[in-house]
Amino acid sequence: MVHWVRFEYRGTVGFGTVADGIVSIHEGDMFNSPESTGKQVKLADVKILTPTEPTKMIALWNNFRMLAEKLGLSRPPEPLYLLKGGNSFFPHGQNIRKPLSYDGKVVFEGELGIVIGQRLSNVSEAQAEAGIFGYTVINDVTAAEIINRDSSFAQWVRAKSYDTFGVFGPVIASGIKPDALTVRTVLNGEERQNYPVSDMVFPPVKLVSLLSHDMTLLPGDVIACGTNVGVGSMKPGSLVEVTIDSIGTLSNTYAA
Amino acid sequence: MVHWVRFEYRGTVGFGTVADGIVSIHEGDMFNSPESTGKQVKLADVKILTPTEPTKMIALWNNFRMLAEKLGLSRPPEPLYLLKGGNSFFPHGQNIRKPLSYDGKVVFEGELGIVIGQRLSNVSEAQAEAGIFGYTVINDVTAAEIINRDSSFAQWVRAKSYDTFGVFGPVIASGIKPDALTVRTVLNGEERQNYPVSDMVFPPVKLVSLLSHDMTLLPGDVIACGTNVGVGSMKPGSLVEVTIDSIGTLSNTYAA
Repeated sequence: MVHWVRFEYRGTVGFGTVADGIVSIHEGDMFNSPESTGKQVKLADVKILTPTEPTKMIALWNNFRMLAEKLGLSRPPEPLYLLKGGNSFFPHGQNIRKPLSYDGKVVFEGELGIVIGQRLSNVSEAQAEAGIFGYTVINDVTAAEIINRDSSFAQWVRAKSYDTFGVFGPVIASGIKPDALTVRTVLNGEERQNYPVSDMVFPPVKLVSLLSHDMTLLPGDVIACGTNVGVGSMKPGSLVEVTIDSIGTLSNTYAA
Repeated sequence: MVHWVRFEYRGTVGFGTVADGIVSIHEGDMFNSPESTGKQVKLADVKILTPTEPTKMIALWNNFRMLAEKLGLSRPPEPLYLLKGGNSFFPHGQNIRKPLSYDGKVVFEGELGIVIGQRLSNVSEAQAEAGIFGYTVINDVTAAEIINRDSSFAQWVRAKSYDTFGVFGPVIASGIKPDALTVRTVLNGEERQNYPVSDMVFPPVKLVSLLSHDMTLLPGDVIACGTNVGVGSMKPGSLVEVTIDSIGTLSNTYAA
């Protein structure tokens, strides 16, 4: 297992592997034979950026059985999804911002994120598995009252694409199998979500294969696998920590 | 009025202004004081690319009065929209491709496109007007039968984000007012759409201001203003030409 991080240090953007609080700086292409520079810096001394700069973030809806049961939703025959805008992409450790134009409920959604490592178009599950670079942690922040505010058109994209609403990181874990992992979300010290990745309707490898038949996936693209039971509101000052063991903890405060 | 084009010539990507079939090559940032190189090349000798590489393309739904009346839709109190994936972005002159994974109806939608020239966040209409770089022509290709295939979730993003479905260009016209323009779509030589931009519910400047309150807009981002009456199917071999006078004609064949 390797943990990849992208960061800013003394005004320069870089990337590298992290272990024991030390970043080993690499150069080249994170997805294609990156090379170690031999230089190291303390993780505590860098500003953590989003671990990739995706050309798109695909966000799944109704992809967990427990939540579907709770909401009375039937199991979808194929993945249902939307896109979160690039303006929403946001790193670990910074303050999620309340939209100036919306006063309603804003919720956290702790999720597993898949990070793509190769160009994938119409690929099999075996090819999809080889094309997954690793996994990250996502807080799929959502302006809940926007979604059904207009009865003629569900505003999924808008509700999930306000600036700072696409939080992911702090790292990408490569070389892991996500199937046995658990997603836990803690709001102000209180556990609110704790669910197994194995409850997914379309698990990662199958999902990547299916999505690659709709849209060409590119290195750095992220798939937010959807959330499960326990979603809740953030209030100004709320601290949200999403943890997936083997990957890490994505921690952000919600600012007014 | 100036027409901007992005192109590939002898293996190199460039951009410039076009007049009378001649491209005057520029360098630097198209949106921030681009400089003429003094070099010229014939438009007929270059491969036309999408005029920008957007970080996002926002596509409006139900933004024209005539179509709303035909479909029995009420006038939305605020813009309703989705995002088209970056994988869908596609230039003038190339063949739109049928998805391998979908056999249903695929339709053309001729539209006006707004191209953003500045970073715009929470801006007034006056600031929005100053921040619009220009206008382009869009064919917002849509896999019509995907949208309502699942009764629990309208699949707008998927229906409009297959590879090659986000066609725009061939140029950006800057220094024009779009209000008096007409969008015409011709399928295999037969006119299918002919509607005035003035029929828009949220006209461009107002739209950019409103959208900037949801999502930060960046230089090169494109807003597809929505279509109007006359949408129809493309068959393998269909030639679709969308023309907006003062901008140009976006022409593509739909390949099987």
